[in-house]
Amino acid sequence: MITPKRFARATPEALHRIFTLAESPESTLGRIEQEISQNLLGFLNNHIVASKNALTDIEQDFICPRIPEQPEFVSDHMHHLLDKLVSQSVHTASPSFIGHMTSALPAFILPLSKLMVGLNQNLVKVETSKAFTPLERQVLGMMHNLVYQEKDDFYQTWMHSAQHSLGAFCSGGTVANITALWVARNKLLKSQGSFKGISRSGLYSALTHYGYQGLVILVSERGHYSLKKSADILGIGQDSVIAIETDENNKIDCQKLAEKCRQLQAENIKVLAIVGIAGTTETGNVDPLDEMADIAKEYQCHFHVDAAWGGATLFSNKYRSILAGIERADSVTIDAHKQMYVPMGAGVVLFKDPSSVADIEHHAEYILRKGSKDLGSHTLEGSRPGMAMLVYASLHIISRPGYEMLINQSIEKAEYFASIIDQHDDFELITKPELCLLTYRYVPKLVQALLADCQLSGDEEQQAELNLILGKLTKFIQKRQREVGRSFVSRTRIKVARYGGEKMIVFRVVLANPLTSKSNLHDILAEQCLLAKESETFLPQLLNMAKIS
Amino acid sequence: MITPKRFARATPEALHRIFTLAESPESTLGRIEQEISQNLLGFLNNHIVASKNALTDIEQDFICPRIPEQPEFVSDHMHHLLDKLVSQSVHTASPSFIGHMTSALPAFILPLSKLMVGLNQNLVKVETSKAFTPLERQVLGMMHNLVYQEKDDFYQTWMHSAQHSLGAFCSGGTVANITALWVARNKLLKSQGSFKGISRSGLYSALTHYGYQGLVILVSERGHYSLKKSADILGIGQDSVIAIETDENNKIDCQKLAEKCRQLQAENIKVLAIVGIAGTTETGNVDPLDEMADIAKEYQCHFHVDAAWGGATLFSNKYRSILAGIERADSVTIDAHKQMYVPMGAGVVLFKDPSSVADIEHHAEYILRKGSKDLGSHTLEGSRPGMAMLVYASLHIISRPGYEMLINQSIEKAEYFASIIDQHDDFELITKPELCLLTYRYVPKLVQALLADCQLSGDEEQQAELNLILGKLTKFIQKRQREVGRSFVSRTRIKVARYGGEKMIVFRVVLANPLTSKSNLHDILAEQCLLAKESETFLPQLLNMAKIS
Repeated sequence: MITPKRFARATPEALHRIFTLAESPESTLGRIEQEISQNLLGFLNNHIVASKNALTDIEQDFICPRIPEQPEFVSDHMHHLLDKLVSQSVHTASPSFIGHMTSALPAFILPLSKLMVGLNQNLVKVETSKAFTPLERQVLGMMHNLVYQEKDDFYQTWMHSAQHSLGAFCSGGTVANITALWVARNKLLKSQGSFKGISRSGLYSALTHYGYQGLVILVSERGHYSLKKSADILGIGQDSVIAIETDENNKIDCQKLAEKCRQLQAENIKVLAIVGIAGTTETGNVDPLDEMADIAKEYQCHFHVDAAWGGATLFSNKYRSILAGIERADSVTIDAHKQMYVPMGAGVVLFKDPSSVADIEHHAEYILRKGSKDLGSHTLEGSRPGMAMLVYASLHIISRPGYEMLINQSIEKAEYFASIIDQHDDFELITKPELCLLTYRYVPKLVQALLADCQLSGDEEQQAELNLILGKLTKFIQKRQREVGRSFVSRTRIKVARYGGEKMIVFRVVLANPLTSKSNLHDILAEQCLLAKESETFLPQLLNMAKIS
Repeated sequence: MITPKRFARATPEALHRIFTLAESPESTLGRIEQEISQNLLGFLNNHIVASKNALTDIEQDFICPRIPEQPEFVSDHMHHLLDKLVSQSVHTASPSFIGHMTSALPAFILPLSKLMVGLNQNLVKVETSKAFTPLERQVLGMMHNLVYQEKDDFYQTWMHSAQHSLGAFCSGGTVANITALWVARNKLLKSQGSFKGISRSGLYSALTHYGYQGLVILVSERGHYSLKKSADILGIGQDSVIAIETDENNKIDCQKLAEKCRQLQAENIKVLAIVGIAGTTETGNVDPLDEMADIAKEYQCHFHVDAAWGGATLFSNKYRSILAGIERADSVTIDAHKQMYVPMGAGVVLFKDPSSVADIEHHAEYILRKGSKDLGSHTLEGSRPGMAMLVYASLHIISRPGYEMLINQSIEKAEYFASIIDQHDDFELITKPELCLLTYRYVPKLVQALLADCQLSGDEEQQAELNLILGKLTKFIQKRQREVGRSFVSRTRIKVARYGGEKMIVFRVVLANPLTSKSNLHDILAEQCLLAKESETFLPQLLNMAKIS
């Protein structure tokens, strides 16, 4: 469509208009907004094109490094954004996009987010957030209550205390994990006698003062990569994150964990933290938290639980017990932007002990003065938006029983999907869902027979060859499905106990979107079978090359 | 108002509606949204009550730590939020709230933010962001260009290269500063021979391997508190942030900086980074960046510029030269949520050398695979929202000349305010604006005469007494003005060269809001004079107690 070229001008009047006059409902942006308000899913369905464009092609639309010397009219720019950006973005709310942890959002979240942006509070200090500060403290109290279930008077004492903190809002789970380990590190290596503490004197002096040969973090081999990142940032080093083996259910082997603790103690290497996972990113399993708490207690080390994904399971009276023992953790990470259906950017870290933050406290002259209730004196980040309002509203509008329904539905949907994969001739379920995640792979009947033969004859080499081919198949299907763009599952590579701990490529599915129906699941499997047919042209060749046929 | 009590129910149908049915325009939330869309400032003026409620009173509305067992209707909850939260929040967009760095936002930002939330992309990986990934890389390229002004082919080579990065989007300036110093630390202490680098082996091994007695960060005494926080988190220790004295214009004294570098070298203490400030938080001054770059070059250390506040001055051809030398920095922090008028949560760190991020790179099996263009492999944070879209749109809609106008207007407004303070009988300008920040204090005529006497007679003790009293006065006025709630200036405590480096309490003003008019400024001073009258009841007593009268 050729439109008459209009030129926007950078004049003081134009700028003043930009800051004072709202977009009219008839403008392009006004119309987009109405479309989103009336029917977000429809808008996304209409505007996100399932394009097969490779990333390198898309990049061609985003190559100019120059800052425009000529302003654009909002409407012209919005056409450009719809055309180049929105159309080529990812339909994270689609019921058939079950490969990642982002989902559809409740409708009230959108106008509420607009209110949040319009208010533009800065939670770093009371001066720029006022009522948002007690609101955030209350939400931290509620989340603390979800995990630790302390009595009301506990919260009355600590929730609004200036020098204390029940937790911290963060931009996401990574910052939450870093914050937890920062607190653990600074508490362990705190001031003593003439030593001023790691916070002031640094890690080198701290290890020297306390006479430790090193610090380590123990976590199962399924631990999230953010833990290694945390160890790097905090100066401990990635190699100090020791991966403990998991059992056949992807849960940490507590015997091995205890053994490792004994061994490290003998070597005078201090365990900074034991990290339990409540919902591994790849398989959704939950570590035996209660047993881990025992071990942490025995070796007197910080016990952190990364419940970024699984934490919301605590809303479910039916499934809450999967996380039993989490209430013994010194700190817990939960992402509200995952199973609490809040938009991206809402991580939370919680502390069992409200005075945990004493060793990371900081002050400045113009804000965060001592004794102030400024949230910024206990957070890793400085300026932060009022995301707590969205969590607050969701907790009230959805309520615990509503969240329980969402959680239960997700888990039961995953069980249903597992059962149809199990019954299907051409798929193999690799990890059963404990929460709403599962993994599986494509194994055509022909190869199933060959695999069975290997298992009977104990031919491990042959089995490995076959698994390699199956990995290629699964990867091929996953990539094609993503390219076609009607649906999306992700893939990962995990050790599978059933195959002697061999690492293999699998489909990974996350069933948190409440809009995903059983028929969506059937359709996804059917599409994968269809795509697998394309592999028939090269599968025999692969099998041949592997000298099987 | 008593409304008939309705009860929301947590049923599967209700939940499904929440995820699929939009708020009707007639609902409370629908009406709020329309009000915001049509006239944000009007909405804020109407709903934010200039209440004198103390924080402890407000807290009473936010004390329940229990997660509701009963859902609420969206409309009921919105009434509650308007009543308890919005009414008691801070009017950051008000033309008379000139005490902080948040300002009014362009009108197009609101609907655009809603689009961003609705798309709910996750920028950690291409799979959940697709076109948003090249878009963010382009915005980083544009911001890099703003600072470093490399040629087009530089950007063609590096902007979209998988293993490289021109910078990183962050939740704010603090994370940007931590990221810059993390990069500097890991680059300095990188792998060498059998040593695997600090990233893997930690700080203790790294210092041992390289044989340094310690690491320090040098910054002027006006440095932002986030630098100490960074030093704490990175394991270097807050005491290793060495504050270098500033001159009478609040700029780092480069002679003292060079001296300190010489002295540290002699002690075998390695300077990890020299940090220049482009826009100090308290006074808005800019360090002599070019001279600092020379020193950093001589001592071969990382040169970081914290331009969180002042970076946007680079848009102004007229004032750009204030930041001359920034293009020699190894890394630069700029907050788009400050003078780029983007909502809270948009920090950026830029790297001169696109391969700087090599030493902080990380990978995982299911995402951030080697060779992928996933942004998450080079960021401190993991999951992140698509804020880059708001910066992109602002750069196109406002354009460089538009930003130049905004910057120039701000600086010139500050100069105007300084001139009326200077001419006023009862105020003293403490720091002149270099950017759009200034500080001043209330000095009634009576005390002015006494101060002049002290300066003549050289009675420093008397002068100190007077300054203490003036500090109390300024603090009294600032607090009362905040309580009354019609306008807001902040206060801080700074060393003032003119009074022999004495620390004193001053008003601090930031004039970034394009809606602030000259008459607003006159009104603010008039209100302060009026409030000062309230002090007449106790000023003589104070003077008396200090044995001056």
